[in-house]
Amino acid sequence: MSDDALVIFTPSGKRGRFAKGTPVLTAARQLGVDLDSVCGGRGICSKCQVAPAYGSFPKHGVTVTEEALSPFNAVERRYDEKRGLKPGRRLGCQAQIQEDVVIDVPPESQVHRQVVRKAASTRTIVMDPATRLYYVEVREPDMHDPSGDFQRLSEALESQWQIAGLRAAPSLLRRLQPVLRKGGWAVTVAVFQPHDGSAPQLLDLWPGFDDSPLYGLAIDLGSTTIAAHLCDLGDGRVAASAGIMNPQIRFGEDLMSRVSYAMMNPGGDREMTQAVRDALNTLTAEIATEAGVDPRRILEAVFVCNPVMHHLLLGIDPVELGQAPFALATSDALSLPARDLELDAMNDAAQVYVLPCIAGHVGADAAAVALSEEPHKSEDLVLVVDVGTNAEILLGSREKVLACSSPTGPAFEGAQISSGQRAAPGAIERVEIDPDTKEPRFRIIGSELWSNDPGFAEAAGALGISGICGSGIIEAVAEMRMAGLVDPSGLIGSAEQTGSARMIPDGRTHSYVLHDGRDEGGPLITVTQGDIRAIQLAKSALYAGARLLMDELGVDAVDRIVLAGAFGAHISPRHAMVLGMIPDAPLDKVSSAGNAAGTGARIALCNRAARSEIEAVVERIHKVETAIEPRFQEHFIAANAIPHATAPFPHLSAVVSLPQVAFGASGGGGGGAAGGGRRRRRR
Amino acid sequence: MSDDALVIFTPSGKRGRFAKGTPVLTAARQLGVDLDSVCGGRGICSKCQVAPAYGSFPKHGVTVTEEALSPFNAVERRYDEKRGLKPGRRLGCQAQIQEDVVIDVPPESQVHRQVVRKAASTRTIVMDPATRLYYVEVREPDMHDPSGDFQRLSEALESQWQIAGLRAAPSLLRRLQPVLRKGGWAVTVAVFQPHDGSAPQLLDLWPGFDDSPLYGLAIDLGSTTIAAHLCDLGDGRVAASAGIMNPQIRFGEDLMSRVSYAMMNPGGDREMTQAVRDALNTLTAEIATEAGVDPRRILEAVFVCNPVMHHLLLGIDPVELGQAPFALATSDALSLPARDLELDAMNDAAQVYVLPCIAGHVGADAAAVALSEEPHKSEDLVLVVDVGTNAEILLGSREKVLACSSPTGPAFEGAQISSGQRAAPGAIERVEIDPDTKEPRFRIIGSELWSNDPGFAEAAGALGISGICGSGIIEAVAEMRMAGLVDPSGLIGSAEQTGSARMIPDGRTHSYVLHDGRDEGGPLITVTQGDIRAIQLAKSALYAGARLLMDELGVDAVDRIVLAGAFGAHISPRHAMVLGMIPDAPLDKVSSAGNAAGTGARIALCNRAARSEIEAVVERIHKVETAIEPRFQEHFIAANAIPHATAPFPHLSAVVSLPQVAFGASGGGGGGAAGGGRRRRRR
Repeated sequence: MSDDALVIFTPSGKRGRFAKGTPVLTAARQLGVDLDSVCGGRGICSKCQVAPAYGSFPKHGVTVTEEALSPFNAVERRYDEKRGLKPGRRLGCQAQIQEDVVIDVPPESQVHRQVVRKAASTRTIVMDPATRLYYVEVREPDMHDPSGDFQRLSEALESQWQIAGLRAAPSLLRRLQPVLRKGGWAVTVAVFQPHDGSAPQLLDLWPGFDDSPLYGLAIDLGSTTIAAHLCDLGDGRVAASAGIMNPQIRFGEDLMSRVSYAMMNPGGDREMTQAVRDALNTLTAEIATEAGVDPRRILEAVFVCNPVMHHLLLGIDPVELGQAPFALATSDALSLPARDLELDAMNDAAQVYVLPCIAGHVGADAAAVALSEEPHKSEDLVLVVDVGTNAEILLGSREKVLACSSPTGPAFEGAQISSGQRAAPGAIERVEIDPDTKEPRFRIIGSELWSNDPGFAEAAGALGISGICGSGIIEAVAEMRMAGLVDPSGLIGSAEQTGSARMIPDGRTHSYVLHDGRDEGGPLITVTQGDIRAIQLAKSALYAGARLLMDELGVDAVDRIVLAGAFGAHISPRHAMVLGMIPDAPLDKVSSAGNAAGTGARIALCNRAARSEIEAVVERIHKVETAIEPRFQEHFIAANAIPHATAPFPHLSAVVSLPQVAFGASGGGGGGAAGGGRRRRRR
Repeated sequence: MSDDALVIFTPSGKRGRFAKGTPVLTAARQLGVDLDSVCGGRGICSKCQVAPAYGSFPKHGVTVTEEALSPFNAVERRYDEKRGLKPGRRLGCQAQIQEDVVIDVPPESQVHRQVVRKAASTRTIVMDPATRLYYVEVREPDMHDPSGDFQRLSEALESQWQIAGLRAAPSLLRRLQPVLRKGGWAVTVAVFQPHDGSAPQLLDLWPGFDDSPLYGLAIDLGSTTIAAHLCDLGDGRVAASAGIMNPQIRFGEDLMSRVSYAMMNPGGDREMTQAVRDALNTLTAEIATEAGVDPRRILEAVFVCNPVMHHLLLGIDPVELGQAPFALATSDALSLPARDLELDAMNDAAQVYVLPCIAGHVGADAAAVALSEEPHKSEDLVLVVDVGTNAEILLGSREKVLACSSPTGPAFEGAQISSGQRAAPGAIERVEIDPDTKEPRFRIIGSELWSNDPGFAEAAGALGISGICGSGIIEAVAEMRMAGLVDPSGLIGSAEQTGSARMIPDGRTHSYVLHDGRDEGGPLITVTQGDIRAIQLAKSALYAGARLLMDELGVDAVDRIVLAGAFGAHISPRHAMVLGMIPDAPLDKVSSAGNAAGTGARIALCNRAARSEIEAVVERIHKVETAIEPRFQEHFIAANAIPHATAPFPHLSAVVSLPQVAFGASGGGGGGAAGGGRRRRRR
């Protein structure tokens, strides 16, 4: 009989020979197998559960008997009685190798387990958080060999977990002595290990063994709304999500009006900083309550935001962002204590990471989209459009990535639209117009029924048909164009010109009646000529930005398009292309990524390497400034037509034929959107 | 003619050949010559002044003509007119090398200039502060190549000063943009470069060129007094010194009563922390005002203190220091923002360095003494005694250094002495007693005259003879022993036994009348039996501590003794040895180092390498805990006799013969000091 035995771990396939009596956890560590442990092999944490496989494994060339591991021991029995061990499971630190064995590490026992995103995308997040729990046993003080309790804790962390050079703020040193004594010289510490290799920091500590989860916040700090996910830093699970309005709205609806507020009012930037920090504290408290999580267990926060919000969060006056050359105070990613940002609703020692900004108009939110959608890893040429009040646009592939932002304005979110409203129950979100009868049918948020389905009236009665949201107005305009109710210049035809009584005069122009709820005390919902103009402005800006990047790259077409943004997920690719919001592309190559910026924030929260990755990627992204590029204006004007004045849309033409109609005098009446010029940015 | 020329720098002797036209500063930098510059060679700061030497230099093998350097140029002329350039001086960045030349770098142009301490010692401080000013010119923002203002500042600092990886807190990022624009993209930055190699930090910035000095505070935080030196971080000059009482005295006179206060009163440690931090803020404001220095220019503070003050400064409950095993919460040196200690009377971004503690009873003050007196570099065996309420004792040489603390009590500072007082004008500080007549003469603080000199009465009349300070009582007791008025056991003889009418009965014991000022309305100043006992207790503790270290090292004698401490400087070595405060040694080998702890703080403030040095030295110092060492008590008892019950004092005997007197019954009356046991520690 040999003195050692062959151990094969699955799914990694890592294998090695170990002396009989070696604990499975020890073998795993020596082979570099990803097997979790918080207590360091002391039979306390149960994180190192493994599933030995018995029988014959020709693939591995071994037969595993019931004697392959040492018998179930007292520690395992106690754990099983107290907390319950799944059948077939062993504690890796207790089970010792006796004979050749095949051992499976189930996903929940892996440190670097993968978290599959809920959204459509197949992107997974590999867990490698910066902050983790470690259980350590600390040497007692010895007056003949004096050293500080902190130094002995630090030594223990190094010898038991190979984490050297721990640092701690005085507030933690203050708590160290009572906690160590309460825990009988055993302590569970939360240690933050920065991705940039700087010294690990003690963030918190608890007496004895304590494996309650640690949490982090992934925050998408928008100018209109602040959205946060509270994530378990152990398994990446989203424990709660919440959003609140950005209270800075009272200082200005859009970004530029907030910059103006700061310019016009001394101390105005500080007021806005205070407002957003207060809101973040409120949001943190609320989300912790909702998830039933002790705020002290929230140890990290990751922020993505546009440059103006970025500066206001950091307490920097954004005034320079309001004028050329749009200089950021700082563009690199930032790691700093939450305390420095007065974020006091989480742990006192919590750490903040802010993703890097790409340029004065292309912020950490765009970086987060890049982290989530990975254009820099794409084999084909991808256009990523994060549709918001300001659109962030990325174009590229593994060769090169370009970025710009484009001031689309708020029309896509239902603002500046006569019957526009936020995406909320009762809002029209889908529209179809019969090209023959010119009669519409639609769906409202909150119901799965179309307006001509049986039962719709009852469903709608409860919700109320209140207006049109962003995706609804896009579909409405595109459908009007496809039904021949709107001509390529954007003019709405009259009842006479179109043969539809739904076209009603509205001053010197016409409107299309989408829904008349006046008999039931509801609103008259129409699409007006002004609405069309607003959409034309917005979509022209979006298209022009994308087109500018294509020019820069010297291409006339893209291989695929990703629509991102909370709103992007709801846009119909076909309607977007009919409108000419996005360049022509095969329709099946246009996909939606949901809130990619928020996903990027979650990735950076859960995975340290992602922080290094996005910092490197942002360095390589080539920035294009739309504000001073003459061609942007040219593209903007040409993109005013629906779908476009000059660009052929071959893929679109293959699936949709647009009626050749013309309702205006030569050049079109009703005021050209092209003259609107550049407007204020907001997001 | 050659295209290059030989350049020899003095005093370094560094030499090299340089292309003609090379500025002297450039040549100096390439050779690693220590030539200062804040503006980086732009002719602004004038720090790089050099003195070319003309004539024949056989030693260097060159003859230097008037044409060796380029002519005095417009920049130098302007500077000379505005600020005045010393005759013969040139600006190193302007003067270009034309022919072979010898160039002297005057001390004030050296970065690493040496500062000679004012005190008796010849120890010099080499300037190498952690925080320095740098003038940089920053690239303007370019929207076609967007980057943050901070990133461009950081790049400039790296390319112009080879300082890479700058970091800045949000509060500084906030100020960056307006300052850069105000200075026309030129800025003077204060950069902190930690001695441990961690990332450099931006501490402050000013538009354009600004070479007003930066300052640091060297603070000796004692339990009774807090003393601070405000030092110019450029040249080490002490701009002002100030001291205030430690307000924690209201919580307890000595350290152990403060620890008790913390144990008995929940939150008591926080009260004391608040009190000392408030006092530090007051002291900082006062010292800045006194020196006429803007508090914002105070960018560093270095602290030395005993372990209890160390913990209270850091906000750590000192309760563990009150009981075995005397565990420190943290023993290593600490670098942290002043903000973390609520020290808000200096620059917001100021950095604090706290020297390491050696053990639970041997603090950062002892480490500072080691840094100042360098026993670890001594060729011979040196005993360093920092005499305070608690004595810190170091013994060793380059082979090995031992340390302990010993609770001497406050007697050496004039407390617990019947006529004792603080060292202040009017206090008796020197005493001589005629061995024949037994008549005393003395000197008081504030007058150079002895009490039997003509004119003394007038001088004393103005000051008042108010009591005896620490050095006075030591001399008085030693002189009484030498004059045969006190026997080896410490008993005072009667008038009969000694033949002196100055011996007056005092209960069951006797006192010696040093001065009777009652006729002039002043006090009767005597040395009582109780005073002798108090001094015996104190000196026994001191001697026992030293002796314990000698045992540990296996030696019976030391080569030299250094008396340190504010009070140590005033002790007469001969009298100290007669008392048996210190072990026997050649009298000329007993020296005084003044406030060595304060000097150590100044060294650590001015020189980064000293921080690394003391951290390494403290690691190697072997700590001896007196509190639990049985031999300490034995040594303490034997040391009760004056000078000692058993130890021979051969060096002392060679210069002083002590009368063989005995005033008591067998074993001595009046209560043995040896029974006093261990008393409370304080410093």
